[in-house]
Amino acid sequence: MTNAVLGCNGNIIENQQFTDLDTNIFVMRTRFESELDLSSAESAWQKELARFQPELNIRATDQPLSTLILVSKESHCLRDLIYLTELKELNIAIPIVASNHKILQSFVESHGIRFEYLADSNKAKNEKQLTQIMDENKIDLIVLARYMQILSAEFCKENSGKIINIHHSFLPGFKGAKPYHQAHQRGVKIIGATAHFVTPELDEGPIIEQDVAHITHSASVEDMVALGRDIERRVLSKAVKLFAQDKIFQVGNRTVVFN
Amino acid sequence: MTNAVLGCNGNIIENQQFTDLDTNIFVMRTRFESELDLSSAESAWQKELARFQPELNIRATDQPLSTLILVSKESHCLRDLIYLTELKELNIAIPIVASNHKILQSFVESHGIRFEYLADSNKAKNEKQLTQIMDENKIDLIVLARYMQILSAEFCKENSGKIINIHHSFLPGFKGAKPYHQAHQRGVKIIGATAHFVTPELDEGPIIEQDVAHITHSASVEDMVALGRDIERRVLSKAVKLFAQDKIFQVGNRTVVFN
Amino acid sequence: MTNAVLGCNGNIIENQQFTDLDTNIFVMRTRFESELDLSSAESAWQKELARFQPELNIRATDQPLSTLILVSKESHCLRDLIYLTELKELNIAIPIVASNHKILQSFVESHGIRFEYLADSNKAKNEKQLTQIMDENKIDLIVLARYMQILSAEFCKENSGKIINIHHSFLPGFKGAKPYHQAHQRGVKIIGATAHFVTPELDEGPIIEQDVAHITHSASVEDMVALGRDIERRVLSKAVKLFAQDKIFQVGNRTVVFN
Amino acid sequence: MTNAVLGCNGNIIENQQFTDLDTNIFVMRTRFESELDLSSAESAWQKELARFQPELNIRATDQPLSTLILVSKESHCLRDLIYLTELKELNIAIPIVASNHKILQSFVESHGIRFEYLADSNKAKNEKQLTQIMDENKIDLIVLARYMQILSAEFCKENSGKIINIHHSFLPGFKGAKPYHQAHQRGVKIIGATAHFVTPELDEGPIIEQDVAHITHSASVEDMVALGRDIERRVLSKAVKLFAQDKIFQVGNRTVVFN
Repeated sequence: MTNAVLGCNGNIIENQQFTDLDTNIFVMRTRFESELDLSSAESAWQKELARFQPELNIRATDQPLSTLILVSKESHCLRDLIYLTELKELNIAIPIVASNHKILQSFVESHGIRFEYLADSNKAKNEKQLTQIMDENKIDLIVLARYMQILSAEFCKENSGKIINIHHSFLPGFKGAKPYHQAHQRGVKIIGATAHFVTPELDEGPIIEQDVAHITHSASVEDMVALGRDIERRVLSKAVKLFAQDKIFQVGNRTVVFN
Repeated sequence: MTNAVLGCNGNIIENQQFTDLDTNIFVMRTRFESELDLSSAESAWQKELARFQPELNIRATDQPLSTLILVSKESHCLRDLIYLTELKELNIAIPIVASNHKILQSFVESHGIRFEYLADSNKAKNEKQLTQIMDENKIDLIVLARYMQILSAEFCKENSGKIINIHHSFLPGFKGAKPYHQAHQRGVKIIGATAHFVTPELDEGPIIEQDVAHITHSASVEDMVALGRDIERRVLSKAVKLFAQDKIFQVGNRTVVFN
Repeated sequence: MTNAVLGCNGNIIENQQFTDLDTNIFVMRTRFESELDLSSAESAWQKELARFQPELNIRATDQPLSTLILVSKESHCLRDLIYLTELKELNIAIPIVASNHKILQSFVESHGIRFEYLADSNKAKNEKQLTQIMDENKIDLIVLARYMQILSAEFCKENSGKIINIHHSFLPGFKGAKPYHQAHQRGVKIIGATAHFVTPELDEGPIIEQDVAHITHSASVEDMVALGRDIERRVLSKAVKLFAQDKIFQVGNRTVVFN
Repeated sequence: MTNAVLGCNGNIIENQQFTDLDTNIFVMRTRFESELDLSSAESAWQKELARFQPELNIRATDQPLSTLILVSKESHCLRDLIYLTELKELNIAIPIVASNHKILQSFVESHGIRFEYLADSNKAKNEKQLTQIMDENKIDLIVLARYMQILSAEFCKENSGKIINIHHSFLPGFKGAKPYHQAHQRGVKIIGATAHFVTPELDEGPIIEQDVAHITHSASVEDMVALGRDIERRVLSKAVKLFAQDKIFQVGNRTVVFN
C-alpha cells in the first residue's frame, strides 16, 4: 500500500486496518493526496496490489456521493440529512427525493431538490421508475428515511450494500400495533434505533450503527415518540456520514466500521 | 406531609414527588430525621395523611434490607452485590445465598454468608424451603443474580414487588440458542441488560433499570460475553441500590424510579 | 395546587415537584388544560396559592417563546435551532437573529427571519440596539449561539435568567490558544459542551445541560472540531428545548431541571 | 508480520493496526497462538521484522502482569481491582499493595496479598523501598489507586509508561478546596474521571481512558462523591484492563488504545 501511494507521488492522510478472523478478510481504508487523476491513481494501486487480489475501490473525496432518499410521510430523518448536507457535514449530494406520498413535496422543492412521486400502487412499476432515476443520476446510495414500503427482493439484491434503512428498537422488542404505547406501559427506560443495510430479509441486514436514549417514568408516549424520532435521525445521519466517508465495509453479514 | 414531619419534630433531608397521570397515583419519597422511634413516627404520619388513604411505608435507613440472593453457576452478579455491600454502597444485608448448584458454595461461605443448596428437582419443595428461609430471616428482597430456574406463578405472586431479575438484551432480540453467536454474526453494535420485577409472566414484569454498552466489529464472541456480564452486573446492582433506597415505586405495570 | 386547577375547571396533564434542601425552596411545574383564558386562570392560581407567596409563572403552551438569537461567524448552533423550530420540536419563535458579522445574513433571511447587523464597535450602543429590539418583539429568551462578544455586566443583570450560552469543555480544561490542538496532543478521549445561563461573571452562570462525546486516538484535530460542533449544537438545543418547556428553574446558583 | 506468525507455525487470533500521521509511527497489536516457546517466537519475529526496526514486545498471555498497587486511605479503586482480578477479568497478579497509611492493611491481607507500609515521611527513602519491592517482584505495572502522595520526577522517569493514575474531573474544573462542594453549588450535570500515565508533570501525562456519569439537581454532595468514586473505579479498572491486554501504546504525549 505504501508503495502504491508512493507510486502516485502521494501522501497518506489517514489509514485504518482490520483483519476479520472469522473470514480472514483484511480490510483497509486509506485517505491520501496525490497530483494524479483518479484513473491514473487507480492504475498505480491495481498494479501494486494485484497479487493480493483486492476488492479495490478508489474515490475522489471532493466528489460527494450521489444519494437518493426515499420517504413516506414523516420528515425528521429527511430534514436532518438535508440540513447536514447543507452544513457540509455529510459528503453527499441529494439530486432527488422520492416518495409514495405528496406531503413532503413542497419542503423538498424549497431546498432545490427534485421531488419524484411514486404514484403507482404497482411495486414493480415503482421500482422500475426508481431504477431509471438511479441510472440517470448515477446514484451511489439509497437512504430509506422512514420509507414505509417494502422493497422487492430483486431490487434489494440489485442494490446490495447500497441501501441504508433506519428503524427504532426497543428492549425488549414489542410486537403488534402501537409499539410506543406498549413500551410505555412496560415502563422501558431506553429507546433505541438501528441503521442497517437492506437485504431481501426484512430488517435482517448487516447493522451499521445503533444507539439509545435513556428515558424516565416521567416520559409520556408523546415524549417517547419525539425521543424516538431524535435517536432515529441521529443514528441514520451517522450511518450515512460513515458511508459517505467510505468507513463501512461489509464482511459476511457484519460490518466493519472505522468510526 | 410537612405537618407529619413537624409532628415528628423532624427535618426533611430529601424529598421527591411524581404524579402519574395514567393512574392518577401520586408518589412521594421523603427522607427525614427525627428523634421519635419508628412506630411513633409511623403513627404521626398515619394521623396526618389518613385522609389521603396513602399506601404508607416507613423504614429506618440504618436498618439494611434483608436480602436473599439466588444464583446458579455464574458468579459475576453475586460477586458485585457482595462487594458493593461490603463497600457499604448497597444498604442491604445478605444472610443467605441459595443455589441449585454447589459451585459457588465456598465462595459464598468465605464471605461469612450461609449457603443453602436447593437440592431437590421438585420445584414446589424448593420454593417451600425458600419460603421458610425467608420467614426465618425476615427477607425484604429476593435477587435473582443469574438464577436459571423459573419460579412458580404462586411464588411470584406471593412475593410480588419483592423479586428482582436481570437478563441481557439485544437490539434486535435473538431467539433460539447461542444469542451471543447470533448477535456477533449480525454485527450488533450494542449489548444491553434489563433489571425488572418478576411476575408470573416470565420476563414481562415492570422494568426498573436498563443500560447498554457499545461494541465494535473488533469484539469477538468472548468479548461480547464478557461485556454482557459487565453490563448485567452493573444494571442489577443499580436496581438493587435503588430498591434499598426505597426509590422504586410500582405504578400499574410500570415503575417510578427517583434516580 | 389541585384546588387551583379545580378552580380553573382544569385537568392536570403533567406535574413535577422538587424540594431543594439547601435553600428550602419548593419548585413545581404543572401542565394543565382549562377553558379559562390565561389571566382568569392566573387569578385562580394566585388566589389559591397566595398563602405560600409563590413566584408564580403561568404561560399558554400554544404561545411559542419569542427568542432572539445572537451569532458571530459559525452557523452550526443557529442552523440546529432554526431547523428544530421548523420541525416544531422547539416551542419557540425566532423573529430576529442579530450578529456582529454579515456572513450569516442571507442564510437567516432565506428562512424568513429578520437579520440585524450589530455594526458598531461600541458595545453600549449595540446593547441599546438589542434592548430596543427585545422590547419591540417582546423577547422572552436570548440565545448566544456561538456569539463571540462579551456582554456587559449591566445587560447580563437586566436579562438575568433569560440568556443561554454554549461553550465546549474539555477534561482537563486547556488554557490559551488552540484548545483543540492542545486537547489532541494530550490525547483526550472525551469532548464536552456546557449550556448555562449568562451572568456578569463570564462562563460562571448556573449550568443547564452538559454532555460529552467519546473520541479515540484516530480522531484528527478536524474530527475533534466537527465533533465539538455536534455536541455544542445538541447541548444548546436541548437547553433551549427545556427552557421553552418551562422545565428549568434557577435556585441559587444552580438549576433544577425537570428533564 | 504474517511471515513472522508463519515462521512460528502460528495462527493469528486478533490483529489491530494504526498509523499515527503526526509522528508517522505505525502501531500494531497481534494476538497469536504458537507451539514455540516465548524466546523462540521472539527470535522469529525479530528476524522477520528487523528491517522495520520495530520496538517489539512479545508476551505470553497466560502470564499475568505483576502489578504493584499504591493506596492511601480510600479503598474503592483497590477493591475493584482486587475483585476483578479474582473474577479473572483483569489479567494481572497483585503480589503487593503499599500504602502511606495502615487503614487498609487488614483488608489487603485478608485477600492473601502482602501489605507494605511506607512508614517514612522521607520520600526518597520510600521510593527506594518501592524500587526494591519492584525488583524483587518483577513488577510490570504500578497503579496509583487514589494514592495521595506525589512521586518524585526521578521515580516517574524511571518507570515511564508503567504508572497509571486516576483522578476525578469536572466540567469546568474547580480549583481550591472541596471541589465537590463547588461543583454542587454550580449545579454541574456531569462528573468525570481520567486515567492517565504518570509523568514528572503532575496530572499531565498521556490520557488512557475517560468517562463521565450524568447527575441531576437532586444529587446531594454525598451522592456526587459516591458517583465520583463509582466512575473513578470504573475508569481505572478499564485502563488497567487495557494495559494488561497490551492494548495501550504511547505515541508522543498521546495514547493509541485498541479498545
